[in-house]
Amino acid sequence: MILEAAASVFDEQGYDRATIAEVLERAGVTKGALYFHFASKEQLALAVLEEQVIDIAVEPQPIKLQEFVDSGQVLAYRLRSDPIQRGAARLAVEQGSNHLDRKQSMLSWSVFVEGLLNEAKARGEVMESIVVRETAELFVGAFAGLQMMSQAFTNRADLSRRLTVFFEHTFPSIAVPAILAKLNLDSERGAQLDAAMQGKTSATAGMDAAAS
Amino acid sequence: MILEAAASVFDEQGYDRATIAEVLERAGVTKGALYFHFASKEQLALAVLEEQVIDIAVEPQPIKLQEFVDSGQVLAYRLRSDPIQRGAARLAVEQGSNHLDRKQSMLSWSVFVEGLLNEAKARGEVMESIVVRETAELFVGAFAGLQMMSQAFTNRADLSRRLTVFFEHTFPSIAVPAILAKLNLDSERGAQLDAAMQGKTSATAGMDAAAS
Repeated sequence: MILEAAASVFDEQGYDRATIAEVLERAGVTKGALYFHFASKEQLALAVLEEQVIDIAVEPQPIKLQEFVDSGQVLAYRLRSDPIQRGAARLAVEQGSNHLDRKQSMLSWSVFVEGLLNEAKARGEVMESIVVRETAELFVGAFAGLQMMSQAFTNRADLSRRLTVFFEHTFPSIAVPAILAKLNLDSERGAQLDAAMQGKTSATAGMDAAAS
Repeated sequence: MILEAAASVFDEQGYDRATIAEVLERAGVTKGALYFHFASKEQLALAVLEEQVIDIAVEPQPIKLQEFVDSGQVLAYRLRSDPIQRGAARLAVEQGSNHLDRKQSMLSWSVFVEGLLNEAKARGEVMESIVVRETAELFVGAFAGLQMMSQAFTNRADLSRRLTVFFEHTFPSIAVPAILAKLNLDSERGAQLDAAMQGKTSATAGMDAAAS
Protein backbone atom coordinates (compact mmCIF):
# COMPACT_ATOMS: atom_id res chain seq x y z
CA MET A 1 0.00 0.00 0.00
CA ILE A 2 2.83 2.38 0.91
CA LEU A 3 4.77 1.32 -2.19
CA GLU A 4 1.81 1.86 -4.48
CA ALA A 5 1.15 5.29 -2.98
CA ALA A 6 4.82 6.23 -3.30
CA ALA A 7 4.95 4.96 -6.89
CA SER A 8 1.93 7.02 -7.89
CA VAL A 9 3.47 10.15 -6.35
CA PHE A 10 6.77 9.48 -8.18
CA ASP A 11 4.81 8.92 -11.40
CA GLU A 12 3.00 12.25 -11.15
CA GLN A 13 5.61 14.49 -9.53
CA GLY A 14 8.95 12.92 -10.34
CA TYR A 15 11.52 12.19 -7.64
CA ASP A 16 12.54 15.77 -6.86
CA ARG A 17 9.05 17.11 -6.24
CA ALA A 18 7.68 14.03 -4.51
CA THR A 19 7.21 14.48 -0.75
CA ILE A 20 6.86 11.96 2.03
CA ALA A 21 3.86 13.98 3.24
CA GLU A 22 1.98 13.26 0.02
CA VAL A 23 2.85 9.57 0.19
CA LEU A 24 1.51 9.44 3.76
CA GLU A 25 -1.71 11.11 2.71
CA ARG A 26 -2.34 8.73 -0.20
CA ALA A 27 -1.37 5.61 1.68
CA GLY A 28 -3.41 6.67 4.70
CA VAL A 29 -0.71 5.54 7.12
CA THR A 30 1.09 7.32 9.93
CA LYS A 31 4.58 8.74 9.67
CA GLY A 32 5.75 6.12 12.14
CA ALA A 33 4.39 3.25 10.05
CA LEU A 34 6.10 4.55 6.91
CA TYR A 35 9.48 5.23 8.55
CA PHE A 36 9.35 1.79 10.14
CA HIS A 37 9.62 0.32 6.61
CA PHE A 38 11.44 3.05 4.71
CA ALA A 39 13.95 5.40 6.26
CA SER A 40 13.90 7.98 3.44
CA LYS A 41 12.45 9.07 0.12
CA GLU A 42 15.43 7.43 -1.56
CA GLN A 43 14.63 4.08 0.05
CA LEU A 44 11.04 4.36 -1.12
CA ALA A 45 12.24 4.99 -4.67
CA LEU A 46 14.65 2.06 -4.58
CA ALA A 47 11.90 -0.23 -3.30
CA VAL A 48 9.60 0.85 -6.16
CA LEU A 49 12.37 0.15 -8.68
CA GLU A 50 13.02 -3.29 -7.19
CA GLU A 51 9.36 -4.22 -7.19
CA GLN A 52 9.08 -3.51 -10.92
CA VAL A 53 11.07 -6.43 -12.28
CA ILE A 54 9.66 -9.00 -9.84
CA ASP A 55 6.21 -8.10 -11.06
CA ILE A 56 6.60 -9.39 -14.63
CA ALA A 57 6.33 -13.18 -14.72
CA VAL A 58 4.43 -14.78 -17.60
CA GLU A 59 3.33 -18.34 -18.37
CA PRO A 60 6.04 -20.65 -19.76
CA GLN A 61 5.75 -21.17 -23.53
CA PRO A 62 7.03 -23.94 -25.83
CA ILE A 63 9.00 -21.20 -27.64
CA LYS A 64 11.19 -19.25 -25.25
CA LEU A 65 11.25 -16.17 -27.51
CA GLN A 66 7.46 -16.09 -27.19
CA GLU A 67 7.89 -15.79 -23.42
CA PHE A 68 10.22 -12.87 -24.04
CA VAL A 69 7.65 -11.21 -26.34
CA ASP A 70 4.93 -11.87 -23.76
CA SER A 71 6.91 -10.27 -20.93
CA GLY A 72 7.43 -7.18 -23.05
CA GLN A 73 3.77 -6.95 -24.00
CA VAL A 74 2.54 -7.48 -20.44
CA LEU A 75 4.91 -4.75 -19.24
CA ALA A 76 3.75 -2.42 -22.04
CA TYR A 77 0.14 -3.05 -21.05
CA ARG A 78 0.71 -2.58 -17.32
CA LEU A 79 2.60 0.66 -17.85
CA ARG A 80 -0.76 2.13 -18.83
CA SER A 81 -2.32 1.74 -15.41
CA ASP A 82 -0.16 -0.11 -12.88
CA PRO A 83 1.17 2.47 -10.38
CA ILE A 84 4.33 0.49 -9.55
CA GLN A 85 5.29 0.16 -13.21
CA ARG A 86 4.50 3.79 -13.99
CA GLY A 87 6.33 5.18 -10.98
CA ALA A 88 9.36 2.99 -11.62
CA ALA A 89 9.44 4.01 -15.28
CA ARG A 90 9.65 7.69 -14.42
CA LEU A 91 12.27 7.09 -11.74
CA ALA A 92 14.37 5.06 -14.17
CA VAL A 93 14.22 7.70 -16.90
CA GLU A 94 14.78 10.96 -15.03
CA GLN A 95 18.07 12.11 -13.65
CA GLY A 96 16.57 14.58 -11.21
CA SER A 97 18.86 16.07 -8.62
CA ASN A 98 19.08 12.84 -6.73
CA HIS A 99 21.83 10.31 -6.56
CA LEU A 100 19.50 7.43 -7.23
CA ASP A 101 21.45 5.04 -9.36
CA ARG A 102 19.46 4.99 -12.59
CA LYS A 103 21.75 2.26 -13.85
CA GLN A 104 20.37 -0.24 -11.36
CA SER A 105 16.94 -0.47 -12.96
CA MET A 106 18.38 -0.80 -16.46
CA LEU A 107 20.85 -3.41 -15.27
CA SER A 108 18.10 -5.48 -13.62
CA TRP A 109 16.08 -5.45 -16.83
CA SER A 110 19.14 -6.30 -18.92
CA VAL A 111 19.90 -9.32 -16.73
CA PHE A 112 16.26 -10.43 -17.04
CA VAL A 113 16.25 -10.13 -20.86
CA GLU A 114 19.71 -11.67 -21.17
CA GLY A 115 18.50 -14.72 -19.22
CA LEU A 116 15.54 -15.25 -21.54
CA LEU A 117 17.62 -14.74 -24.69
CA ASN A 118 20.34 -17.10 -23.45
CA GLU A 119 17.76 -19.83 -22.88
CA ALA A 120 16.28 -19.17 -26.32
CA LYS A 121 19.73 -19.38 -27.89
CA ALA A 122 20.54 -22.63 -26.08
CA ARG A 123 17.38 -24.08 -27.65
CA GLY A 124 18.45 -22.99 -31.13
CA GLU A 125 15.74 -20.33 -31.46
CA VAL A 126 18.19 -17.45 -31.84
CA MET A 127 20.71 -17.00 -34.67
CA GLU A 128 24.28 -17.95 -33.83
CA SER A 129 25.54 -14.50 -34.87
CA ILE A 130 23.62 -12.77 -32.06
CA VAL A 131 25.68 -11.44 -29.14
CA VAL A 132 23.12 -11.88 -26.38
CA ARG A 133 24.36 -9.12 -24.07
CA GLU A 134 24.26 -6.53 -26.87
CA THR A 135 20.81 -7.56 -28.01
CA ALA A 136 19.48 -7.58 -24.45
CA GLU A 137 20.75 -4.05 -23.78
CA LEU A 138 19.31 -2.90 -27.11
CA PHE A 139 15.87 -4.10 -26.03
CA VAL A 140 16.09 -2.46 -22.61
CA GLY A 141 17.40 0.88 -23.87
CA ALA A 142 15.06 1.09 -26.84
CA PHE A 143 12.05 0.09 -24.74
CA ALA A 144 12.81 2.87 -22.24
CA GLY A 145 12.67 5.40 -25.06
CA LEU A 146 9.58 3.94 -26.71
CA GLN A 147 7.57 4.00 -23.49
CA MET A 148 8.65 7.61 -22.92
CA MET A 149 7.56 8.62 -26.43
CA SER A 150 4.31 6.74 -26.06
CA GLN A 151 3.65 8.45 -22.75
CA ALA A 152 4.23 11.90 -24.22
CA PHE A 153 1.98 11.22 -27.22
CA THR A 154 -0.86 9.06 -25.89
CA ASN A 155 -0.28 8.48 -22.15
CA ARG A 156 1.00 5.03 -23.28
CA ALA A 157 -2.21 3.98 -25.06
CA ASP A 158 -0.14 3.12 -28.17
CA LEU A 159 2.81 1.49 -26.37
CA SER A 160 1.74 -2.09 -27.19
CA ARG A 161 1.58 -1.18 -30.86
CA ARG A 162 4.99 0.55 -30.74
CA LEU A 163 6.47 -2.52 -29.09
CA THR A 164 5.04 -4.75 -31.81
CA VAL A 165 6.63 -2.51 -34.45
CA PHE A 166 9.95 -2.80 -32.61
CA PHE A 167 9.66 -6.60 -32.49
CA GLU A 168 8.71 -6.75 -36.18
CA HIS A 169 11.80 -4.74 -37.08
CA THR A 170 14.26 -6.70 -34.97
CA PHE A 171 13.13 -10.34 -34.77
CA PRO A 172 14.00 -11.12 -38.40
CA SER A 173 17.63 -10.43 -37.34
CA ILE A 174 17.36 -12.42 -34.10
CA ALA A 175 15.07 -15.47 -34.48
CA VAL A 176 15.79 -18.38 -36.82
CA PRO A 177 13.16 -18.42 -39.61
CA ALA A 178 11.21 -21.46 -38.36
CA ILE A 179 10.72 -19.73 -35.00
CA LEU A 180 10.04 -16.33 -36.51
CA ALA A 181 7.11 -17.77 -38.45
CA LYS A 182 5.53 -19.06 -35.24
CA LEU A 183 5.90 -16.01 -33.01
CA ASN A 184 2.76 -14.14 -32.03
CA LEU A 185 3.71 -10.46 -32.00
CA ASP A 186 0.14 -9.21 -31.83
CA SER A 187 -0.21 -5.96 -29.92
CA GLU A 188 -3.39 -7.14 -28.13
CA ARG A 189 -1.48 -9.95 -26.49
CA GLY A 190 -0.43 -7.94 -23.42
CA ALA A 191 -4.03 -7.11 -22.51
CA GLN A 192 -5.13 -10.73 -23.03
CA LEU A 193 -2.29 -12.19 -20.95
CA ASP A 194 -2.86 -9.66 -18.19
CA ALA A 195 -6.57 -10.50 -18.05
CA ALA A 196 -5.76 -14.22 -17.93
CA MET A 197 -3.27 -13.66 -15.09
CA GLN A 198 -5.69 -11.47 -13.12
CA GLY A 199 -8.40 -14.11 -13.60
CA LYS A 200 -6.08 -16.78 -12.29
CA THR A 201 -5.12 -14.66 -9.28
CA SER A 202 -8.75 -13.97 -8.38
CA ALA A 203 -9.60 -17.67 -8.94
CA THR A 204 -6.77 -18.66 -6.58
CA ALA A 205 -7.82 -15.97 -4.11
CA GLY A 206 -11.37 -17.33 -4.39
CA MET A 207 -10.21 -20.86 -3.66
CA ASP A 208 -8.15 -19.65 -0.73
CA ALA A 209 -11.19 -17.83 0.61
CA ALA A 210 -13.35 -20.95 0.11
CA ALA A 211 -10.72 -23.11 1.84
CA SER A 212 -10.41 -20.84 4.84
CA MET B 1 26.56 32.08 -26.55
CA ILE B 2 23.42 32.47 -24.40
CA LEU B 3 21.94 29.31 -25.92
CA GLU B 4 25.08 27.27 -25.28
CA ALA B 5 25.21 28.50 -21.69
CA ALA B 6 21.53 27.71 -21.17
CA ALA B 7 21.91 24.27 -22.77
CA SER B 8 24.81 23.39 -20.49
CA VAL B 9 22.81 24.44 -17.41
CA PHE B 10 19.82 22.36 -18.59
CA ASP B 11 22.17 19.43 -19.22
CA GLU B 12 23.60 19.53 -15.71
CA GLN B 13 20.61 20.66 -13.62
CA GLY B 14 17.54 19.67 -15.62
CA TYR B 15 14.78 22.18 -16.37
CA ASP B 16 13.35 22.49 -12.86
CA ARG B 17 16.59 23.30 -11.11
CA ALA B 18 18.07 25.47 -13.86
CA THR B 19 18.08 29.20 -13.02
CA ILE B 20 18.38 32.24 -15.24
CA ALA B 21 21.02 33.53 -12.82
CA GLU B 22 23.29 30.58 -13.61
CA VAL B 23 22.78 31.02 -17.35
CA LEU B 24 23.75 34.70 -17.02
CA GLU B 25 26.88 33.83 -15.10
CA ARG B 26 28.03 31.23 -17.66
CA ALA B 27 27.17 33.32 -20.70
CA GLY B 28 28.78 36.40 -19.16
CA VAL B 29 25.96 38.64 -20.33
CA THR B 30 23.69 41.08 -18.49
CA LYS B 31 20.14 40.34 -17.49
CA GLY B 32 18.95 42.95 -20.00
CA ALA B 33 20.80 41.29 -22.89
CA LEU B 34 19.33 37.90 -22.07
CA TYR B 35 15.75 39.11 -21.60
CA PHE B 36 16.04 41.03 -24.85
CA HIS B 37 16.30 37.67 -26.66
CA PHE B 38 14.44 35.32 -24.32
CA ALA B 39 11.55 36.38 -22.13
CA SER B 40 11.66 33.34 -19.81
CA LYS B 41 13.34 30.08 -18.87
CA GLU B 42 10.74 28.30 -20.97
CA GLN B 43 11.66 30.29 -24.07
CA LEU B 44 15.32 29.47 -23.49
CA ALA B 45 14.45 25.78 -23.31
CA LEU B 46 12.34 25.91 -26.47
CA ALA B 47 15.15 27.67 -28.33
CA VAL B 48 17.63 24.96 -27.26
CA LEU B 49 15.22 22.26 -28.48
CA GLU B 50 14.75 24.01 -31.84
CA GLU B 51 18.46 24.47 -32.36
CA GLN B 52 19.07 20.73 -31.94
CA VAL B 53 17.52 19.47 -35.16
CA ILE B 54 18.88 22.29 -37.34
CA ASP B 55 22.36 21.32 -36.20
CA ILE B 56 22.48 17.88 -37.84
CA ALA B 57 23.11 18.21 -41.56
CA VAL B 58 25.43 15.71 -43.21
CA GLU B 59 26.94 15.43 -46.70
CA PRO B 60 24.62 14.02 -49.38
CA GLN B 61 25.37 10.37 -50.22
CA PRO B 62 24.60 8.25 -53.29
CA ILE B 63 22.61 5.97 -50.97
CA LYS B 64 19.98 7.93 -49.04
CA LEU B 65 19.87 5.37 -46.20
CA GLN B 66 23.58 6.04 -45.69
CA GLU B 67 22.74 9.70 -45.10
CA PHE B 68 20.23 8.56 -42.50
CA VAL B 69 22.84 6.38 -40.80
CA ASP B 70 25.32 9.26 -40.94
CA SER B 71 22.89 11.70 -39.31
CA GLY B 72 22.34 9.25 -36.48
CA GLN B 73 26.03 8.63 -35.95
CA VAL B 74 26.91 12.33 -36.04
CA LEU B 75 24.19 13.00 -33.48
CA ALA B 76 25.42 10.11 -31.31
CA TYR B 77 28.94 11.51 -31.45
CA ARG B 78 27.93 15.11 -30.71
CA LEU B 79 25.80 14.06 -27.74
CA ARG B 80 29.11 13.27 -26.03
CA SER B 81 30.32 16.85 -25.95
CA ASP B 82 28.10 19.34 -27.77
CA PRO B 83 26.26 21.44 -25.13
CA ILE B 84 23.23 22.16 -27.34
CA GLN B 85 22.71 18.46 -28.10
CA ARG B 86 23.23 17.40 -24.49
CA GLY B 87 20.96 20.09 -23.04
CA ALA B 88 18.24 19.37 -25.59
CA ALA B 89 18.45 15.62 -24.92
CA ARG B 90 17.81 16.08 -21.22
CA LEU B 91 14.97 18.54 -21.85
CA ALA B 92 13.36 16.13 -24.31
CA VAL B 93 13.53 13.19 -21.92
CA GLU B 94 12.49 14.66 -18.58
CA GLN B 95 8.96 15.57 -17.66
CA GLY B 96 9.94 17.92 -14.86
CA SER B 97 7.24 20.11 -13.39
CA ASN B 98 7.15 22.30 -16.46
CA HIS B 99 4.65 22.42 -19.24
CA LEU B 100 7.32 22.27 -21.90
CA ASP B 101 5.84 20.21 -24.64
CA ARG B 102 8.15 17.20 -24.78
CA LYS B 103 6.29 16.02 -27.83
CA GLN B 104 7.64 18.88 -29.94
CA SER B 105 11.21 17.64 -29.94
CA MET B 106 10.19 14.05 -30.73
CA LEU B 107 7.87 15.27 -33.48
CA SER B 108 10.61 17.37 -35.09
CA TRP B 109 12.95 14.39 -35.14
CA SER B 110 10.22 12.11 -36.48
CA VAL B 111 9.52 14.51 -39.35
CA PHE B 112 13.25 14.67 -40.10
CA VAL B 113 13.64 10.87 -40.15
CA GLU B 114 10.41 10.38 -42.07
CA GLY B 115 11.68 12.73 -44.78
CA LEU B 116 14.91 10.77 -45.20
CA LEU B 117 13.13 7.40 -45.21
CA ASN B 118 10.53 8.60 -47.72
CA GLU B 119 13.29 9.69 -50.10
CA ALA B 120 15.06 6.38 -49.60
CA LYS B 121 11.83 4.51 -50.30
CA ALA B 122 11.15 6.55 -53.45
CA ARG B 123 14.57 5.45 -54.69
CA GLY B 124 13.79 1.80 -54.05
CA GLU B 125 16.25 1.45 -51.15
CA VAL B 126 13.57 0.54 -48.60
CA MET B 127 11.36 -2.55 -48.67
CA GLU B 128 7.84 -1.96 -49.91
CA SER B 129 6.35 -3.46 -46.73
CA ILE B 130 7.79 -0.69 -44.56
CA VAL B 131 5.32 1.87 -43.17
CA VAL B 132 7.60 4.90 -43.09
CA ARG B 133 5.85 6.79 -40.28
CA GLU B 134 6.01 3.75 -37.96
CA THR B 135 9.65 3.07 -38.73
CA ALA B 136 10.60 6.74 -38.28
CA GLU B 137 8.94 6.91 -34.87
CA LEU B 138 10.59 3.65 -33.88
CA PHE B 139 14.00 5.16 -34.60
CA VAL B 140 13.26 8.37 -32.69
CA GLY B 141 11.78 6.65 -29.65
CA ALA B 142 14.40 3.92 -29.46
CA PHE B 143 17.25 6.39 -29.94
CA ALA B 144 15.96 8.51 -27.04
CA GLY B 145 16.16 5.46 -24.78
CA LEU B 146 19.54 4.27 -26.04
CA GLN B 147 21.17 7.67 -25.48
CA MET B 148 19.70 7.73 -21.97
CA MET B 149 21.04 4.28 -21.18
CA SER B 150 24.41 5.14 -22.65
CA GLN B 151 24.55 8.32 -20.60
CA ALA B 152 23.79 6.46 -17.38
CA PHE B 153 26.40 3.77 -18.09
CA THR B 154 29.27 5.58 -19.82
CA ASN B 155 28.35 9.28 -20.11
CA ARG B 156 27.54 8.40 -23.76
CA ALA B 157 31.00 7.06 -24.62
CA ASP B 158 29.37 3.86 -25.97
CA LEU B 159 26.43 5.51 -27.72
CA SER B 160 27.91 5.17 -31.24
CA ARG B 161 28.37 1.47 -30.65
CA ARG B 162 24.82 1.07 -29.28
CA LEU B 163 23.46 2.87 -32.33
CA THR B 164 25.39 0.54 -34.64
CA VAL B 165 23.88 -2.46 -32.82
CA PHE B 166 20.43 -0.93 -33.29
CA PHE B 167 21.06 -0.39 -37.02
CA GLU B 168 22.41 -3.94 -37.41
CA HIS B 169 19.25 -5.34 -35.82
CA THR B 170 16.78 -3.26 -37.84
CA PHE B 171 18.22 -2.60 -41.30
CA PRO B 172 17.82 -6.20 -42.49
CA SER B 173 14.06 -5.57 -42.09
CA ILE B 174 14.18 -2.13 -43.75
CA ALA B 175 16.76 -1.98 -46.55
CA VAL B 176 16.58 -4.07 -49.72
CA PRO B 177 19.48 -6.57 -49.75
CA ALA B 178 21.57 -4.84 -52.43
CA ILE B 179 21.53 -1.62 -50.36
CA LEU B 180 22.03 -3.42 -47.06
CA ALA B 181 25.28 -4.90 -48.36
CA LYS B 182 26.63 -1.45 -49.19
CA LEU B 183 25.74 0.42 -45.97
CA ASN B 184 28.56 1.50 -43.71
CA LEU B 185 27.27 1.06 -40.16
CA ASP B 186 30.67 1.45 -38.54
CA SER B 187 30.50 3.05 -35.10
CA GLU B 188 33.57 5.24 -35.77
CA ARG B 189 31.77 6.98 -38.61
CA GLY B 190 30.21 9.72 -36.46
CA ALA B 191 33.60 10.88 -35.17
CA GLN B 192 35.08 10.84 -38.68
CA LEU B 193 32.20 12.76 -40.25
CA ASP B 194 32.22 15.31 -37.43
CA ALA B 195 35.96 15.88 -37.85
CA ALA B 196 35.50 16.32 -41.62
CA MET B 197 32.68 18.82 -41.05
CA GLN B 198 34.66 20.78 -38.45
CA GLY B 199 37.64 20.90 -40.83
CA LYS B 200 35.44 22.23 -43.60
CA THR B 201 33.91 24.87 -41.33
CA SER B 202 37.31 26.10 -40.20
CA ALA B 203 38.57 26.07 -43.81
CA THR B 204 35.56 28.17 -44.88
CA ALA B 205 36.02 30.45 -41.89
CA GLY B 206 39.66 30.81 -42.89
CA MET B 207 38.70 31.74 -46.45
CA ASP B 208 36.15 34.23 -45.18
CA ALA B 209 38.75 35.78 -42.95
CA ALA B 210 41.24 35.94 -45.84
CA ALA B 211 38.60 37.48 -48.12
CA SER B 212 37.60 40.17 -45.66
